[in-house]
Amino acid sequence: MKKFENFSEWFDEIIFNADILDARYPVKGFAVYKVWGFRIVKNILEILERKLDETGHVPMLFPVVIPEDAFARESEHIKGFSSEVFWITHAGDRELDKKLLLRPTSETAMYPMFALWIRSHADLPLKVYQSVAVYRYETKATRPLFRMREFLWNEAHTAHKTWEEAEKQVREAIGIYSYVFKRLGLSYLILRRPDFDKFAGAVYSIAFDAWNPDGRVNQIGTVHNLGENFAKAFEITYEDVDGKHRNVVQTCYGFGLSRVVAAIIAQHSDDHGLILPPDVAPIQVVIIPILYKETAHEVNAYAKEVYETIKSSGIRVHLDTTEDKTPGEKFYYWEMFGVPVRVEVGPRDQRERNVTLVKRVGLQRRVVKFEEAVTAIRELFDEILRELEERSNSVLKEFVVDAVDQLSLSEIVKLKRRIARVCWCESLECADKIRESSGGEIRGYRFDIEEKPDKPCIICGREAKRVVYVARAY
Amino acid sequence: MKKFENFSEWFDEIIFNADILDARYPVKGFAVYKVWGFRIVKNILEILERKLDETGHVPMLFPVVIPEDAFARESEHIKGFSSEVFWITHAGDRELDKKLLLRPTSETAMYPMFALWIRSHADLPLKVYQSVAVYRYETKATRPLFRMREFLWNEAHTAHKTWEEAEKQVREAIGIYSYVFKRLGLSYLILRRPDFDKFAGAVYSIAFDAWNPDGRVNQIGTVHNLGENFAKAFEITYEDVDGKHRNVVQTCYGFGLSRVVAAIIAQHSDDHGLILPPDVAPIQVVIIPILYKETAHEVNAYAKEVYETIKSSGIRVHLDTTEDKTPGEKFYYWEMFGVPVRVEVGPRDQRERNVTLVKRVGLQRRVVKFEEAVTAIRELFDEILRELEERSNSVLKEFVVDAVDQLSLSEIVKLKRRIARVCWCESLECADKIRESSGGEIRGYRFDIEEKPDKPCIICGREAKRVVYVARAY
Repeated sequence: MKKFENFSEWFDEIIFNADILDARYPVKGFAVYKVWGFRIVKNILEILERKLDETGHVPMLFPVVIPEDAFARESEHIKGFSSEVFWITHAGDRELDKKLLLRPTSETAMYPMFALWIRSHADLPLKVYQSVAVYRYETKATRPLFRMREFLWNEAHTAHKTWEEAEKQVREAIGIYSYVFKRLGLSYLILRRPDFDKFAGAVYSIAFDAWNPDGRVNQIGTVHNLGENFAKAFEITYEDVDGKHRNVVQTCYGFGLSRVVAAIIAQHSDDHGLILPPDVAPIQVVIIPILYKETAHEVNAYAKEVYETIKSSGIRVHLDTTEDKTPGEKFYYWEMFGVPVRVEVGPRDQRERNVTLVKRVGLQRRVVKFEEAVTAIRELFDEILRELEERSNSVLKEFVVDAVDQLSLSEIVKLKRRIARVCWCESLECADKIRESSGGEIRGYRFDIEEKPDKPCIICGREAKRVVYVARAY
Repeated sequence: MKKFENFSEWFDEIIFNADILDARYPVKGFAVYKVWGFRIVKNILEILERKLDETGHVPMLFPVVIPEDAFARESEHIKGFSSEVFWITHAGDRELDKKLLLRPTSETAMYPMFALWIRSHADLPLKVYQSVAVYRYETKATRPLFRMREFLWNEAHTAHKTWEEAEKQVREAIGIYSYVFKRLGLSYLILRRPDFDKFAGAVYSIAFDAWNPDGRVNQIGTVHNLGENFAKAFEITYEDVDGKHRNVVQTCYGFGLSRVVAAIIAQHSDDHGLILPPDVAPIQVVIIPILYKETAHEVNAYAKEVYETIKSSGIRVHLDTTEDKTPGEKFYYWEMFGVPVRVEVGPRDQRERNVTLVKRVGLQRRVVKFEEAVTAIRELFDEILRELEERSNSVLKEFVVDAVDQLSLSEIVKLKRRIARVCWCESLECADKIRESSGGEIRGYRFDIEEKPDKPCIICGREAKRVVYVARAY
């Protein structure tokens, strides 16, 4: 497939042709989400936000601007982000007394408010989320959806009484993201980042690294245990049952909407265009009548009947009645947009009161009775998701390759553009050498399963502490 | 009611107590939408966006930043907005080559893209919307929800082949907004703004001015016919059927989400707190079990059964099982949050398999059979909305007062804090004098009905051209 040969070109073509994103906006790193792309975003958000609601998170909306002094309060955090924030210095023709920055992430917007809201143990846990755009002045080359200066995400922020509760929250967050990614059929590694690469201000960071056809991993979500770092900086304390005042323990996690859209495209789509998981497809089923002069009237009426039946079941269905296109052109068009199921309704279908169902993935067809259409479509949706998931999983398995020495490490990451699995002693010197010889980064060790190193450190030959994954990244 | 006596204090108390907005964010004019307020916003948006979708608008998302040169292309537009935009001048520690501004509205973000997208008559009409925050450096005093430097809105932008089609679009837009406002029970005047007060760059502007208890009108929506002004500035042309290239004709309209929330609170709520129209209440029905020791078990089980039945009907229902509050405290609490219907379930209700329904507005009670509960609640919703609408309408009628001379004009607007209905000759001199003597502004003349002046101009005594409405405004 083209996507494994020339990923960039293939990807840019799809996001342009399928109305996902228009990157011609006249500011570098900023782009327009067009209708198809934005509807996918909204559908993903709906799944995610429902799950967050069900698990006791509440939606809020915080300002896009953060005052300089709040931003500066947690020292590691400002060190990590200050080189990449946009500064608002003027309004109208006046200079502002206090400079404002566009949120690169919202800890420093939210936590001054948390300090006002949290008084006693009865106010905890506090679990807040918002779905917004954030702003980072990326100095690396920007890439549509993958690396933008404005990108969409959902961020959740929680405060707890104890470290144990925060740890439990980290696991809940991983469960929530895993649930959503499963409904999108995505494959990824859940990695605990090495300390030198954790979120600025966190005790530790966990990330979801999705595979990408060009071998560069795509971080689609992160979960951080912040410990008491921000609580100390922002004086977020609560009065405990014993009357003592204690710092809260915090977590935060981010779901990268723009990057998840990128991952859906990159993992599932093919040379015909987009392939969408049924749950997030703006149109899940497209009906295309096959018209011949003599039977056009009957077939059109039947197609309308099929449409009404499918629509009333709650499925997002579209009846394509445009007149200046052949059925073949319509097939091609909707394949490009990744509509999961096509329903063909021809004279024979009409006569026998059948419908012909065609899956976008694999393009297999089957004929079912009109009365069974809705059930059959729902089964197809499940089948499609399973297929997407399995296919994506098997690529991930194929993409992860054990490196036995520096030469094979370099070959795996640099030449073959894969993810190397490596034993590492945890020293920074060896991490540097791994980076140098592979051109990739240590992304971390598996969080969901324990992997014991069975070889010495790939660089120094001393005892290895961790099995880590090395890859180039977006 | 307090709201007619001391509006500001009453309003600030409600938005704080009912978790609408926290205005203590450390940047002036920026605030946090808390859970109840943000859920109301989301529910309003759902109604509005569905209607926009149904009428052929498509959702997109444009960047928050606009480059200086695009902003400057339409001369009236930049004149109107340049004094109130936020400027981004730096990123990290570098100065940007090209200054960026935060969108105060999105014409100049969208129309360079429209110029790329529109090629032929087949691309028209183009009808796009987005729901976002916009940024204006207000120099007047900021007020939560009413006048903020960051406020939420939905903006739609359309392009058409002809002036006639644009005119039709203006009427469609007014119809859409009227539909949504009706579902919120709001009352307002639809006014065509005088030319000196139209949107910067428009041919003409129409606005929805909602009444407010303090007599200052609250502009909750605007609709503009832009003619070819922006099309010329941004070179948005299409090839017509005859092969000639023509400018598109554009309209745009904005639905002020923050201000609509303000209007809902201001028009409907009372001294007990918020009153919400059922369609946008985050919780539409709250069930409160009335527990006595002996029957607590049965009543709780029955309340659960009532809850499940109501929930499965799709109504947003909450069962309040908190244990440290009396039923009376719970009544008080949920009244403050404006939940439209309270269901009381006591021992007698349980024995007789009834439920007691209490409306938030008026607090009337009625007892209905369990089997009829869902139907009765839905009827109550309709009844509540009708009541809110009628009540609000009658206040609006009372608020509009005919001014016969300058003295009565001054009295109506300044002292009585009402909206004056005035005959005006359309001269700017008289407009100035109207402003001076009333402290208010000419908001415009009725767009939905034709009103013929039956008196001379209130200032100069010459023939009046228009019946206009004069009020102070947010």
